[in-house]
Amino acid sequence: MNTLRHPRVPELIVQRWFNTPQPITLASLRGKVVVIESFQMLCPGCVTHGLPQASRVYATFPPDKVAVIGLHTVFEHHAVMTPQALEVFLSEYRIPFPVGVDMPSSTGDIPETMRAYAMRGTPTLTLIDQHGYLRQQYFGKVDDLALGAEIGALLGESQSVLREEMGATGCSEGQCEL
Amino acid sequence: MNTLRHPRVPELIVQRWFNTPQPITLASLRGKVVVIESFQMLCPGCVTHGLPQASRVYATFPPDKVAVIGLHTVFEHHAVMTPQALEVFLSEYRIPFPVGVDMPSSTGDIPETMRAYAMRGTPTLTLIDQHGYLRQQYFGKVDDLALGAEIGALLGESQSVLREEMGATGCSEGQCEL
Amino acid sequence: MNTLRHPRVPELIVQRWFNTPQPITLASLRGKVVVIESFQMLCPGCVTHGLPQASRVYATFPPDKVAVIGLHTVFEHHAVMTPQALEVFLSEYRIPFPVGVDMPSSTGDIPETMRAYAMRGTPTLTLIDQHGYLRQQYFGKVDDLALGAEIGALLGESQSVLREEMGATGCSEGQCEL
Amino acid sequence: MNTLRHPRVPELIVQRWFNTPQPITLASLRGKVVVIESFQMLCPGCVTHGLPQASRVYATFPPDKVAVIGLHTVFEHHAVMTPQALEVFLSEYRIPFPVGVDMPSSTGDIPETMRAYAMRGTPTLTLIDQHGYLRQQYFGKVDDLALGAEIGALLGESQSVLREEMGATGCSEGQCEL
Repeated sequence: MNTLRHPRVPELIVQRWFNTPQPITLASLRGKVVVIESFQMLCPGCVTHGLPQASRVYATFPPDKVAVIGLHTVFEHHAVMTPQALEVFLSEYRIPFPVGVDMPSSTGDIPETMRAYAMRGTPTLTLIDQHGYLRQQYFGKVDDLALGAEIGALLGESQSVLREEMGATGCSEGQCEL
Repeated sequence: MNTLRHPRVPELIVQRWFNTPQPITLASLRGKVVVIESFQMLCPGCVTHGLPQASRVYATFPPDKVAVIGLHTVFEHHAVMTPQALEVFLSEYRIPFPVGVDMPSSTGDIPETMRAYAMRGTPTLTLIDQHGYLRQQYFGKVDDLALGAEIGALLGESQSVLREEMGATGCSEGQCEL
Repeated sequence: MNTLRHPRVPELIVQRWFNTPQPITLASLRGKVVVIESFQMLCPGCVTHGLPQASRVYATFPPDKVAVIGLHTVFEHHAVMTPQALEVFLSEYRIPFPVGVDMPSSTGDIPETMRAYAMRGTPTLTLIDQHGYLRQQYFGKVDDLALGAEIGALLGESQSVLREEMGATGCSEGQCEL
Repeated sequence: MNTLRHPRVPELIVQRWFNTPQPITLASLRGKVVVIESFQMLCPGCVTHGLPQASRVYATFPPDKVAVIGLHTVFEHHAVMTPQALEVFLSEYRIPFPVGVDMPSSTGDIPETMRAYAMRGTPTLTLIDQHGYLRQQYFGKVDDLALGAEIGALLGESQSVLREEMGATGCSEGQCEL
């Protein structure tokens, strides 16, 4: 890996955290692949695609290998997507991973981390390697197969990268056992 | 990678090929990750899950990095799942990748490659690394995210492993652009 | 139809309407089958199932035969599911039919119409016949096929009940034309 | 209902039946709404959409009100879509309703019932009313909501038309109970 080609990711600037006993820094996650799912709670593509995919990533990879973080990057309708509303949303939708509220800007609608990361909108998925470098940033929809390949490539040649042993599922789902 | 731990995959024993101008050998695919989708044309889990997933793999990764091969491993109802019937099936379902017919056994129901690979039934997905070693074999259903991770890990730290540049999809699917 | 068996549905008690130039009364809808989709904007089952189904009903049946009404029946987390937040939600999710905000109760969490209709939670789908009688009330999930049958039964033997002529779709989706 | 407008449906011409102890005639089904799902076992749209929908119809409505019949209308690739192959297909896919093999034509590719019904291809869904008149014939895909409405309209104003009491499903699927 030629790390010279990849920019170092700026630290998260977060107003408040949910689903974690203490604030999370990217610096503390060195050695793990990091997936940041940036969303707005009233963004349909985030609710339908981005957050469910982030939950699947969280369920698929072991927490000591891959960290999943949600980031509530509100850039419109600030009055109704408050941290108080987010708290209800996270509870109702049973989001299992830590979620930070991106720090509101004093000078505009776009919050601080969103601006620092040059995100184009929501949902945005940011992929950070084990050394803290930015490797991919997707705005919109990315398929599970492609995202899995990127994560797997970053994890490198590890023989058991998945949270649970995958494989045989017996005769359910219509497959035909010998 | 400790190749000592991984068995060398035996060569395919194929009666007849479809969707390829000439027979395919694993030996000729060294340097590529190989995905073998073993199926029966009247196996619901193969039609619903296995073959569509193999087609997604084929569409996602560049052909010089990942080879996708179908293998028709008929171990039951031989009289109706003939090569002639398979040819119609492949055409109707528009299967885009090469498919080989596993060589029928002279001594039993299980065809030669299926027996040599110790497959348990269909669908079975076999994952072979760039050096020809067996790395994973899944009977039944495996998720795209997990399969992508395995393929990505085998491809190694490559910066553009996907067939097409992934990423922004504009404002479709309900995401919110700035 | 033995109307004696069916209760008359009480009139809607609504604080504020969206997506309609003027308030809607059930009395004004006599002669139409009425589908009321009661929801909360932060209820996952409403967002995933109930509202999309109501939108499908709205798209399938002609507006002079079937009226679709949303009712925001907030019975928890009132502070964050305000009419102001609902307005953003309806816009982001592009809900096409009229939506009323159920009148908050002065004595408890359950709003007035929700109490009067004895709803058990959200989503609830209420089906009212052309004479204003309550015919079905579903809490939770109801399949399209079953819901369609109920609506069709209420519409009676009409030969063209659907908004658009259904039928031939050519050779897309894998069907095989002669 | 103005039955003068609807053609009487010709009787089925069937070579062989599966999933029924004795041959079925339309004449014997007077008093029931009849749904005929015409398909070919190697037609992707039939396998993906038509047959699963027919199975849902079969599961939703009581058998004394709605009869579901499959019809194997082979008009191409006759050599591989034989009754013997169909028998395996029906077993593997666990099709629960009676299926007849449309009688091959002595003069062409299109079988007898398919020709008599003027079907354009597969899948085709034919809807017959309780008096034996043709009410709808769909080539291709029809939505559950629209199909349900047509069936419900034919069933007329019956207060419990569904096989099982629909309704409350508790708190699963994300809905919020009081």
